Order: sequence, then structure tokens, then C-alpha cells
Amino acid sequence: MNRDDAVALDQADPLAPLRNLFDLPEKTIYLDGNSLGALPRATAGRVAEVVTQEWGQGLIESWNTASWITLPQRVGDKIARIIGAGQGEVVVADSTSLNVYKVLASALSIAAEDSPERRIVVSERSNFPTDLYIASSLCRDRGYELVLVDSPSEIEGLLDRTAVLMLTEVNYRTGYLHDMASVTALAHERGALTVWDLCHSAGAVPVDLRGADADFAIGCGYKFLNGGPGSPAFLWVSPRHVDRFSQPLSGWMGHAAPFEMSPGYRPAEGVSRYLSGTPAVIGISALECGVDTLLAAEAHGGLQALREKSLALTRLFADLVGSRLPGFTIESPLDDARRGSQLSLSTGEGAYAIVQALIERGVVGDFRAGSPDILRFGVTPLYTRYVDIWDAVDHLVAVMDNDEWRAERFWTRGAVT
Amino acid sequence: MNRDDAVALDQADPLAPLRNLFDLPEKTIYLDGNSLGALPRATAGRVAEVVTQEWGQGLIESWNTASWITLPQRVGDKIARIIGAGQGEVVVADSTSLNVYKVLASALSIAAEDSPERRIVVSERSNFPTDLYIASSLCRDRGYELVLVDSPSEIEGLLDRTAVLMLTEVNYRTGYLHDMASVTALAHERGALTVWDLCHSAGAVPVDLRGADADFAIGCGYKFLNGGPGSPAFLWVSPRHVDRFSQPLSGWMGHAAPFEMSPGYRPAEGVSRYLSGTPAVIGISALECGVDTLLAAEAHGGLQALREKSLALTRLFADLVGSRLPGFTIESPLDDARRGSQLSLSTGEGAYAIVQALIERGVVGDFRAGSPDILRFGVTPLYTRYVDIWDAVDHLVAVMDNDEWRAERFWTRGAVT
Repeated sequence: MNRDDAVALDQADPLAPLRNLFDLPEKTIYLDGNSLGALPRATAGRVAEVVTQEWGQGLIESWNTASWITLPQRVGDKIARIIGAGQGEVVVADSTSLNVYKVLASALSIAAEDSPERRIVVSERSNFPTDLYIASSLCRDRGYELVLVDSPSEIEGLLDRTAVLMLTEVNYRTGYLHDMASVTALAHERGALTVWDLCHSAGAVPVDLRGADADFAIGCGYKFLNGGPGSPAFLWVSPRHVDRFSQPLSGWMGHAAPFEMSPGYRPAEGVSRYLSGTPAVIGISALECGVDTLLAAEAHGGLQALREKSLALTRLFADLVGSRLPGFTIESPLDDARRGSQLSLSTGEGAYAIVQALIERGVVGDFRAGSPDILRFGVTPLYTRYVDIWDAVDHLVAVMDNDEWRAERFWTRGAVT
Repeated sequence: MNRDDAVALDQADPLAPLRNLFDLPEKTIYLDGNSLGALPRATAGRVAEVVTQEWGQGLIESWNTASWITLPQRVGDKIARIIGAGQGEVVVADSTSLNVYKVLASALSIAAEDSPERRIVVSERSNFPTDLYIASSLCRDRGYELVLVDSPSEIEGLLDRTAVLMLTEVNYRTGYLHDMASVTALAHERGALTVWDLCHSAGAVPVDLRGADADFAIGCGYKFLNGGPGSPAFLWVSPRHVDRFSQPLSGWMGHAAPFEMSPGYRPAEGVSRYLSGTPAVIGISALECGVDTLLAAEAHGGLQALREKSLALTRLFADLVGSRLPGFTIESPLDDARRGSQLSLSTGEGAYAIVQALIERGVVGDFRAGSPDILRFGVTPLYTRYVDIWDAVDHLVAVMDNDEWRAERFWTRGAVT
């Protein structure tokens, strides 16, 4: 394998034209779409239209005339196509953190009725911290114990006394991909409900919530959905629970008739009761462009074709690391079936500085502190090329061979590291 | 008083140049800035810069290089100047509804420690519904009773057993303005904490949270702060409580060191612990333009000058209604000291249709269902002119005199009424 082989793979790639749907900086190899997705070409124009026309000229009437009021459901329906949910089952709202609070509270309320003797919530210590902070808060307030496992293999032994099993489908550090269908089936067989965080899987791997018979799910708008920095997030609830779930952040937009302005809360039908405050119109409009861009892949083989390319990219990355970078350990699963859309590496020392040195060379991955510290490289098959992987590894080899990473300027941490 | 007199008032108005800071539709008289503020001229360019440059070109690095990570505090510090708060005491986050949940939960936690025998939360039945929905949810979960009064005069009799008094400073329906300082003093004297909703006062009337010695406050970004549809909201906590308050929506951005990625939550110092998920960068950036536009009034007499003009506008409106529209009742206080920046009217029948007929004539107010139904007209002294008031009343007279409002097309309600 040499660089020309990588170029040839790109030339033969039927998904290659999709890269033109993004505005990417020219000299950057961007391998951080799992943290913040790139800017779709359509977004700037659409956001400008929302700001200058819909807001500036339409003003308050745009809630009706520009259909702002149904944006959470309209974009939710588009996201549904990416995560194996039905139409009318998904809404866009708030942030991942707040949505975790809502769905976990819903699941706990159902568990409290159906199996009040179950007093633990189970998650992984390696789950994304915000999920754990939120779960910890809710468990404390509701008298549950949050039990964190260090390995997925410990989960089964806890299920008989578990109220809710809360997992992130793809681990943010390692890219480990749970088998949602089998884990959910096992949880149900043993009487536990499931809450799935799709932050690193929605848009990155094919998700099939209905097929897996999951209970509740949430996910992020600004990673593989390319919704922009701090984009609103989404929620899904299984049709099985939709008639009975409640949630504590019961703001007016989740009311059955918000503009009746009645002092008593009456929840909206279905998933819309997860709405709380006034929808973030500009943010949801930007997210819609990101989701549309992903859906454009449907004409090129869809999520399955994206998944195959993603696996080919991370496999190539792993092969090149194996042959050219003996000082690095691959922290992501080598089994395709268990690997999300990223490759994570660790090394003896200097992970942070190595990431900084790569950034100076135009290769943008990121650093995640922990044991071990991680160099994280996300691939987004919509715009990542095979040659990007080849070049990124080549730069990493240079950073190491030249001891570039030891330069003092790479050791000063920014606010966001 | 005739139309020329109104034009003369505008010509003599030192605040008149501020109207040029907004992009307003040419033929509209916009009297709904209390629902959705108008578009500042600076916003479209700034939003485009955030999208195309900071996100599109800077990508993930903009969290550091464009200081996205401190946006909630930076814009919070600007809002602080409008609401009588100190620097470092305000953050921008999430929505009004979610922020009510956070501050009321904080206040209840403090009350539970300091005066556990107090078991009621007091608010007004006429408070904005979302505040009541959220309060009701929290009270149910924490074993408190939510007591709603029909008149402010009933509050005092309840204070001896009140844990938290939660009021909106300016009533959304009538524009009634509470005396925050004296109500807070009374509450404190009787042992209750106060939560103030500033949605209809921040940017509309001078607010002095520190002067009033309030406990907690939240407010809206998309009304008088002109932040755009669904703009993020803000929160403030008194320095008196800042070392001990907690909040249940404890997401990673409220952590003392989010990027340590530790599984245990450790709250950030001060008001920043009210942050939850990833900040809505585009939305907060738009809000910053709105706040900057309001702060531009500082060179023209500031909030006090805006307040005087606002009162003059609503007084003119009330005078004209009194002399020209005998079929209408003014539902807003005629006492300047008790009136916010709006004038609300009621009439025998057809309030909704009358509002629609006015909109067709280019006069945009809004309708709020209730007893009685309300025609609501907000004034924003940054861009509302005296002649706008004269013309709006003139149109309302025509709508009534011609029976225009009886036309069938005005009786069909939109999704947002």
C-alpha cells in the first residue's frame, strides 16, 4: 500500500462526490467530525434565510408562515430515517445532557411502577461523563444507586436487579460499538429497561431502534449529523411506552395545547411531550441542513454504503498504524462489527502534544484524557478520503520520527483540550 | 393630539437614531417585540461569520481560538449590565423553562436545609404557563405544594409558610410590574426565598437584582434582548447563595473541569454550574448582537431613557384608546410605576379576529387567550416610534368602525395564535 493506492481507492469510491456537499478548509485533514461535524455547503445560505427573511421580515408571524412551530417534529422525522425510528417518533430539542435527564427520568418512572423492587441504574464508567453526571443527579434525587461497570461483561450479572440499563452505543473514547439488539434483548429478558445514547452512532453507523426493540434513545446534533457547534439534540421513545411516559422538564412546548395558556399542564401526544422551552429556530434549521446532507447519501447506497466505507477507512488506518507506528497501541476494536467510525490510539507519553503537533501540520484529531490518554481520529465517510488517512498517518510518522511533539509549544493546554 | 404631534415627538426624540440599528420590514408597525424582538442590523453578518469562518474554517479549534467555550459567561456579563447584576454573576444557557427548573430546584434545596418546615411554593395563577408547569413538576417530585394566588395582595398572608416565592416581574398578559425590591424585602423578612422571572422586564424596564437583594433570577433572550427566535436564555444567582447552591441538570459544561472527563461530577465555581450541555454557539452569538444593540443605548441615556420613552409610548397609546376606542378596556396598569413595556386591551368579542385584521393592515400585536381574551401591544423604545402608536390606534379604529374584523378570514386560528 502506498499513497497512489489510496488515491485510487478515492477515485473508485462511489461516495466521493458527497464531499462536495461540504465547505472544508483547503489544507486541513479533518478527523474530528465525531466531536464537531464539518459545515455543509447548504447551511450558510439557509441560516441567512432564516435570519434575514424569516426572522427579520416575517417576525412573529413566521411561527405560522415559516412553520417554525413544527421544526422539532419535521427535523425529528428526518433523523428518524437515520436511526431506524418511525415517523412521528423523534423530536429535536435542547442538548444531549438535558435529554438524558428526560429519558432516564421517564424510564425510572415506568420502572418504579412496573418493578419497584429494582433500585439500580447500570452504566459504564467509560460512558461519556455528562451521561454519568446526569444519571447520578437523578439517581440521588429518586433514591436509586448508579452502578458503573468497567467492562460490558459485568452487565449481565446485574440485570436481575436493574431498573434501567443506560449505555452509549459507541464509546466516545475507544469507538467500541455495542450490539444494541442483543444487549436490549438480554435486558428485557431479565426485566430491565434500556436507554441508548446515540451521540457517536447516529449518522455514523446504521442504527435500528425499532429493530432492536429499544426503549428510549437520545443523540447529538453536532457530531455525525453536522448540525453545527452546540446544535440541538434529539429524543426517541418506543411506541410501546408512548402512551404512558412522563418527563419532569415539562415546559409549555410539551403541552397538548401551549397557546391555550392554561395554568395546568396537560402533556402533548407522543414524543412531543419531550419538548420543553421555545424551539431554537436557528439551531434546528442549521441541523436540518446537516441531516439533509446525510440523507443525500441515500442516492449513493445510503447508510450501509457509508458504513462500509467508514470501516474500510478505519481498517486502513489501523493497518498503517500497525506497520508504520510500532510505538502506538490501537485502543479501538479491530473487529469490524464492534468498531464505530473512529480509531483511537494510545502511546507511552505525550498524547496531548502529539495531537497538537499534528494539528500544526493540518491534521485535526483530538485528545481525550484518561487511562490511558487517547489520540482520537474520527472518520466521516461523507467527506473523509482514503488519501486523508494515508496522509494523516504519514504526518504522524513524521511527528514521531522528528521528535516534533517534544517542542514546548505543544505542551500548553487550551481551555478545551 | 394629532398625527403631526406624534411625528414631532419622534423628531425631538434623542433615542430615535437607535431604530437604524434594526432591520425592520418597511410597511410593518411592529408591536410584538415582547414576544419576538426584531432583527438587529449586526446579527446577520455576525451569524454568517460564526457559520462560515468560525465553524466552517476553524472547525473544532474554534472552541479555543474563537473563544466559544466562554460565550455563556461573556454574553452573561453583558446581560448583567442590563439587570443590575455583577460581572461573573450571569450565564447564558438553554431555555427559560429549563432555567426555571434549575433555579427553583436550587432555591428549594436551600429552603429544605434552612427551613424544612416550609412546604409551599407561591406563584400567581396569571404567571406565564411554562413557569407554572415546571414549578408544578418540581413541587410534585419534591413533596411541595404549589399555591397560586389570583392577586398579588394574597401573597403576604402566605409568606410565613412559603419556601420559595416565584414571580414574573412583568406579567405577560397585563404588563403589571411588581415592585421587586419591596416584594423581595417582605419575602425575606418573612423567611421566604425569591425566584424572579425577568422575561418581560430584562431590556424593557430597569432591573436591579443586586439593589433588590433578590435570590435567583432567569430571563429570556428573544424578547427585549432581540436574540432571535428560540434564543438561549440566562440565569443569575445572588452572591449570597453562590457558594452553596446546587442544581439537578448537572451536565458536563457545569463541571469544574469538563475536559478532565472524570466520571464524578464536581460543580464549577459560581453561576457557571448552571451550564449543562454544550453551549448553542450560533444562538448565543446572535443573542450577543441583540444585547450589544441594547447596550448601544448607553450613549443615549441608557435604560433610564429607554424606560421614560417606553412609558411615554404606552401612556400615549392608553390616552388614544381612552379617547377614540370606547369599546375597549385597558387591562394594563395606568400607574406608570406598575406598567411594563406593553399595553393590553380587552373588548366584548372577537379579540383574536381584531388582532388578525390589524396584522393584515401591517400592525403586528398579538392575541393571548384567557379571561378576558387580550389584545397585546408591546413597545420597544429602541425602535418603536410615537407615530407608530398613533397609526396603530388609527388602524384599530378603522378595523372597528368598518367591522373589518367580522370577515370570516380573520376567525381561522393558526398553530400559534
